[in-house]
Amino acid sequence: MIIQKTSNSRIQNLDKDNISFGSTFIDHMLVCEYENGKWGEVRIMPYGSFSFSPAMMCLNYGQACFEGMKAYKDQKGQVFLFRPEKNFERINKSAKRLAMPEVTREMFVEGLKALVDIDRAWIPQGEGFSLYIRPLIFATEEALMARESNKYMFAIIASPAKAYYSAPVSVLISDYYSRAANGGIGFAKAAGNYAAAFYPTQLANEAGYEQIIWTDDATHGYFEESGTMNVFVRVEDTIYTPPVSERILDGITRDSFIELAKRRGMEVVVDKIPVQFVINAHKEGTLKEIWGVGTAVVSNRFKAMGYKGERLTLPLLSDEESYAENLKKELIGIQSNQQEDPFGWRVLVEEGVAHK
Amino acid sequence: MIIQKTSNSRIQNLDKDNISFGSTFIDHMLVCEYENGKWGEVRIMPYGSFSFSPAMMCLNYGQACFEGMKAYKDQKGQVFLFRPEKNFERINKSAKRLAMPEVTREMFVEGLKALVDIDRAWIPQGEGFSLYIRPLIFATEEALMARESNKYMFAIIASPAKAYYSAPVSVLISDYYSRAANGGIGFAKAAGNYAAAFYPTQLANEAGYEQIIWTDDATHGYFEESGTMNVFVRVEDTIYTPPVSERILDGITRDSFIELAKRRGMEVVVDKIPVQFVINAHKEGTLKEIWGVGTAVVSNRFKAMGYKGERLTLPLLSDEESYAENLKKELIGIQSNQQEDPFGWRVLVEEGVAHK
Ligand SMILES: Cc1ncc(COP(=O)(O)O)c(C=O)c1O
Ligand SMILES: Cc1ncc(COP(=O)(O)O)c(C=O)c1O
Repeated sequence: MIIQKTSNSRIQNLDKDNISFGSTFIDHMLVCEYENGKWGEVRIMPYGSFSFSPAMMCLNYGQACFEGMKAYKDQKGQVFLFRPEKNFERINKSAKRLAMPEVTREMFVEGLKALVDIDRAWIPQGEGFSLYIRPLIFATEEALMARESNKYMFAIIASPAKAYYSAPVSVLISDYYSRAANGGIGFAKAAGNYAAAFYPTQLANEAGYEQIIWTDDATHGYFEESGTMNVFVRVEDTIYTPPVSERILDGITRDSFIELAKRRGMEVVVDKIPVQFVINAHKEGTLKEIWGVGTAVVSNRFKAMGYKGERLTLPLLSDEESYAENLKKELIGIQSNQQEDPFGWRVLVEEGVAHK
Repeated sequence: MIIQKTSNSRIQNLDKDNISFGSTFIDHMLVCEYENGKWGEVRIMPYGSFSFSPAMMCLNYGQACFEGMKAYKDQKGQVFLFRPEKNFERINKSAKRLAMPEVTREMFVEGLKALVDIDRAWIPQGEGFSLYIRPLIFATEEALMARESNKYMFAIIASPAKAYYSAPVSVLISDYYSRAANGGIGFAKAAGNYAAAFYPTQLANEAGYEQIIWTDDATHGYFEESGTMNVFVRVEDTIYTPPVSERILDGITRDSFIELAKRRGMEVVVDKIPVQFVINAHKEGTLKEIWGVGTAVVSNRFKAMGYKGERLTLPLLSDEESYAENLKKELIGIQSNQQEDPFGWRVLVEEGVAHK
């Protein structure tokens, strides 16, 4: 690993209380380039730019995938990652499906720790604050043939993130648009999946809904995901979530919610969720809550859902009654080292690890 | 339109008989940038590079779409585009579905003519030669939020293309992987669609097939497209091709083949093609030919098809008997101004139009 530190830190400009998320970047980034069938040396260098022409293959054929994860600083200033091995495994699943080279543990996990160690001062401390981390791989060869690229870049960039309150949202159950095909790339964190979701989401926004609940494309009869979150439905005291499949992203927050719920003795059913089952439960008054989960917001409750032109209001439980809130609190406690971690999910970023 | 000509033409390096397609670019490119809700001025400038950071939105969220078209030089040195209005319409359909700004006719059609006019010397003359032209739009804002970008670049780049003989290929009928979802983006020339196809195509290659025949993702029971071509099936003397839909690219070559076949009085049925119908026709000996069509190769005949572990050999008609070959010859004749153009498909690029 080559470490080239900046002589021009921008950290004095960081105003923790006015972070513009996603457009303020930490001083450094990690970069590694692939050529002639292999990855080159991992470099940590000042955040900055490269040059490209409009022939860069990922602009034309979309070979690009990414991860989204966070680092948390506890009250003593220690820094933790959350289940980074899961993101490492997932980016390689995405890469494989897009015919891109997989990255090594050294590049991803060790590189990540070194980068976070070097820029640990950028991680804001305090309830809900974190460092949002974006590893990505994209095709860099400049050529116009519709085939897989021979050159790639792996990069890790990161942006400080403030706590943000996620107010309950309204969601539209999709009965026309879909996110993923059978035998497609829905399980991959492929760049192209996100672009495909923006227009349907705009239409949902215009109809008065913040998010979409994606359904299966063949029948639109089953819940799949919600926006960029996995989805949970609670009927009476049972929690339902769809099984992951080649159409559904295998979310790390989803997996963590399932584990936490089971440990509490809650009943968790991982099975297909028919839209009609949810609509019926709503009618019968047994539908207690629906929520989405993902790294960005941890969890976000739904207050209404649109279906076939109707807007169905969901009950709003108190924080004490809500499974979504209880599990969220517990997960945040584990992530930020305020609570015991029975699963071994937290990974300490040792001080000085970049230089070991 | 701002025209900034290069003082360093590379054209003396162009060796018509050894063109490395897709990686040799003409001297100039067209560029136009979108910001603050509108497109800026169209610029024609020396082909070259821009700078980007790994936060560039199209690398992360895949907002990128493109077109593929050709310019042809006739024996007198006149240069023609082929149905450029169709590409203009299609790129805007793609852009809309990906929540990207549409481009104007001035940017696309007039810009294209000016660029081709300026670099007309780069278009190789002679049977089958052409200039391959790649207009594209991609998101350039640098931010990590999963939402549509506020900044875009529209660019047109081009590469001289030599004649290439398209030998008949073997194709695998997909019974697991798919290219597009119902309510998805299959009809768009979205960058992400291509990345999604590479891995299944690699698997097909390993199984001894050059291309895939994509089927519908819900049942895998119907033909959709083949590789990056639309598909035609001939049973006895009737030609079948699937209707375009939100899953199938509305190919310009496909449309032209249909028109040409109808004008010749051939029977053309635009309807769903069940895989079983084709397999049965093969068994009964009534299946005459199958071929794909697209701008790159015009048309490519299939010599075998794989289905459920079996490899079915297709008849190989003589060029005279083959509808695929006859229609291809006629289309090439029109494109390259060797034949009358009853449809008005050819568009002359006037000399000096860039400076008008
Ligand atoms: C489509 C989609 N589904 C679900 C998730 C949730 O995954 P995770 O919990 O790993 O962040 C994400 C990412 O945030 C996503 O992009
Ligand atoms: C997926 C796909 N289908 C079909 C085609 C054929 O379209 P056209 O005839 O407009 O080139 C293309 C582009 O070449 C394509 O990428």
